[in-house]
Amino acid sequence: MSDIAEVYRHRIERVRAAMSERGVDAVMLSAGHDLPYLTGYEAMPLERLTMLVVDQHRVPTLLIPRLEVARVEPLDGVFELQPWDETDDPVALAASLAREARTVAIGDQMWARFLVELLGKLPGVEYRRAVEVVGPLRMRKDDAEIAALAAAGAAVDRIAAQLQAGEIPLVGRTEAEVSADLSARIVAEGHDRVNFAIVAAGENAASPHHHAGARVIGEDEIVLCDFGGTMKGYCSDTTRCVVTGAIPAEIAEAYEILHTAQRAAVAAATVGTACSQVDRAARQVIEDAGYGEYFVHRTGHGIGLEEHEDPYIVDGNDLALEHGHAFSVEPGIYVPGRWGMRLEDIVVATADGPVSMNNSDHHLISV
Amino acid sequence: MSDIAEVYRHRIERVRAAMSERGVDAVMLSAGHDLPYLTGYEAMPLERLTMLVVDQHRVPTLLIPRLEVARVEPLDGVFELQPWDETDDPVALAASLAREARTVAIGDQMWARFLVELLGKLPGVEYRRAVEVVGPLRMRKDDAEIAALAAAGAAVDRIAAQLQAGEIPLVGRTEAEVSADLSARIVAEGHDRVNFAIVAAGENAASPHHHAGARVIGEDEIVLCDFGGTMKGYCSDTTRCVVTGAIPAEIAEAYEILHTAQRAAVAAATVGTACSQVDRAARQVIEDAGYGEYFVHRTGHGIGLEEHEDPYIVDGNDLALEHGHAFSVEPGIYVPGRWGMRLEDIVVATADGPVSMNNSDHHLISV
Repeated sequence: MSDIAEVYRHRIERVRAAMSERGVDAVMLSAGHDLPYLTGYEAMPLERLTMLVVDQHRVPTLLIPRLEVARVEPLDGVFELQPWDETDDPVALAASLAREARTVAIGDQMWARFLVELLGKLPGVEYRRAVEVVGPLRMRKDDAEIAALAAAGAAVDRIAAQLQAGEIPLVGRTEAEVSADLSARIVAEGHDRVNFAIVAAGENAASPHHHAGARVIGEDEIVLCDFGGTMKGYCSDTTRCVVTGAIPAEIAEAYEILHTAQRAAVAAATVGTACSQVDRAARQVIEDAGYGEYFVHRTGHGIGLEEHEDPYIVDGNDLALEHGHAFSVEPGIYVPGRWGMRLEDIVVATADGPVSMNNSDHHLISV
Repeated sequence: MSDIAEVYRHRIERVRAAMSERGVDAVMLSAGHDLPYLTGYEAMPLERLTMLVVDQHRVPTLLIPRLEVARVEPLDGVFELQPWDETDDPVALAASLAREARTVAIGDQMWARFLVELLGKLPGVEYRRAVEVVGPLRMRKDDAEIAALAAAGAAVDRIAAQLQAGEIPLVGRTEAEVSADLSARIVAEGHDRVNFAIVAAGENAASPHHHAGARVIGEDEIVLCDFGGTMKGYCSDTTRCVVTGAIPAEIAEAYEILHTAQRAAVAAATVGTACSQVDRAARQVIEDAGYGEYFVHRTGHGIGLEEHEDPYIVDGNDLALEHGHAFSVEPGIYVPGRWGMRLEDIVVATADGPVSMNNSDHHLISV
């Protein structure tokens, strides 16, 4: 068995152990990232169903449209292919593979249409989320995964440095033009694909998920850039803000608070600390400074094969961080109609303390 | 009420009529294309739930993460926004909106995680696919939608013409480089985004969904290019093959059969004809010529807001074509390990007969 097959086989064994513990008889995975985590194969989200069925009894079966078979890298002992033809009913085939299961766990991002059809074909089954059995494994990144996150992080850091050095023109360009520029750099720095490149200037920066548009960037404005991609399967994600010219006193002051909050949350992200406490560490600084109402989102999200995955750094999440948990720490301050700012690194909790995957300058720089 | 609000309001009324007919009490839509069809708003597929709940009693409610609110274009009388906060349970809010429903129809592309959670919060409910009530409406394109498909089709036709005129270098470049070139042209010709740009040379063309890779295109090879994007919400999709140099007799002969099959299926695509019969028209020609085993996929898929939607042109689909149905007609012949070919146009069934949205040269051209 090849080394890579051994990695996947081991992961499947750990999923099976988690299934036993939690009383899950079968796991069904389709579009989404659990499938590549266990097989190396990423299904296109399509109306033609691709589905891995894992139980305790046999080699996992990968149901796949026959015309996708050529795209699969076979891995002996990891899974067996079961191609289906254009006039077959793939959901019936999947139901048949799980016909003895009383509890079935479903991949998060499978299209609901397939689950609706399964409900009719496997009545009386209890459905759960596969994240129960796959999520805890995916959360704990191994050394190779941490190295992949670090490499992707270093790539976006190089772009952040270009931004901060004034090498990416801003004034006179539209947000959309700068976003396209960032996207090209994400690929040029070694990513396989761009996941997003938010560029928000001035008052637009007050919308955390602003869609880069036709607004032209002017002088003396804050410009928020939040960008990332996927490199060898693992995601990058960083946010830096710059100002085109003089930094207004109000913005400089708020940024100091933001920077302090971000540092506090990174420092709090030690093994054993609850995710909610990491969120609290950032939020407390911002609340104490009187900006609490302007920090309108959670402090962070897990990251790995997926841009957003467990663990979420949010109030109410009592999960304790473990060695290998990877997540963003990205507090923000958003004053509607006026300006916004966010500072974001990817951080990995380790036995030696929190390690940042992003190390470009954390200050608000005038370009 | 604005004109555009009137379009959406009218669509929602037709969905409600279909719900009454089919005994559906509530429709829940999230990621996917039913939501923009009814509201103009496209939800990012995210772990933060966006969901439109439509029933017979009140203005549809759009549950939305508070930090996405700024991205929504409000449409009075079409829907009401209900923002939720980071520590709310949005699935519980959705369940509460549908608490009196006994039959709930779920959007096809909603992430299954949300349906798994709904199952626990709305027990005893019968779940169906929303395509039952929204699909028939979306299938029948109105004049504005047909015009949008025609404009997107004309844009990819211009690229096909560039390919056929030899203006897109092939020999010596990798498939991936040509794919990137096609992608840039898709945007340059007016699309908002690229959906795919398959480039498959020689034996790679035998894999219908080949992923453009590092293979360098050589002389005297067939090169299959299948590409499309989204322009003002509506999709394009066309396939043309060219040969880099001399066309081998075997390939020329097979292409004649393919061309005849494609023409036969387009001609068969009249109002009232079953989708299965359109598939049969293409397949019969290819089978009669002895290539039946090499035509491994359905003849086509519907297209509109989505690249693949109803109606599917496939054996077993007895749906009769109606005025405004839009779909691909794309037979192929794939000889494993040797070569492949496909010829694809988007066609709209109309009262005046089938109308092709793609009109670039249908012949196999040597470049």
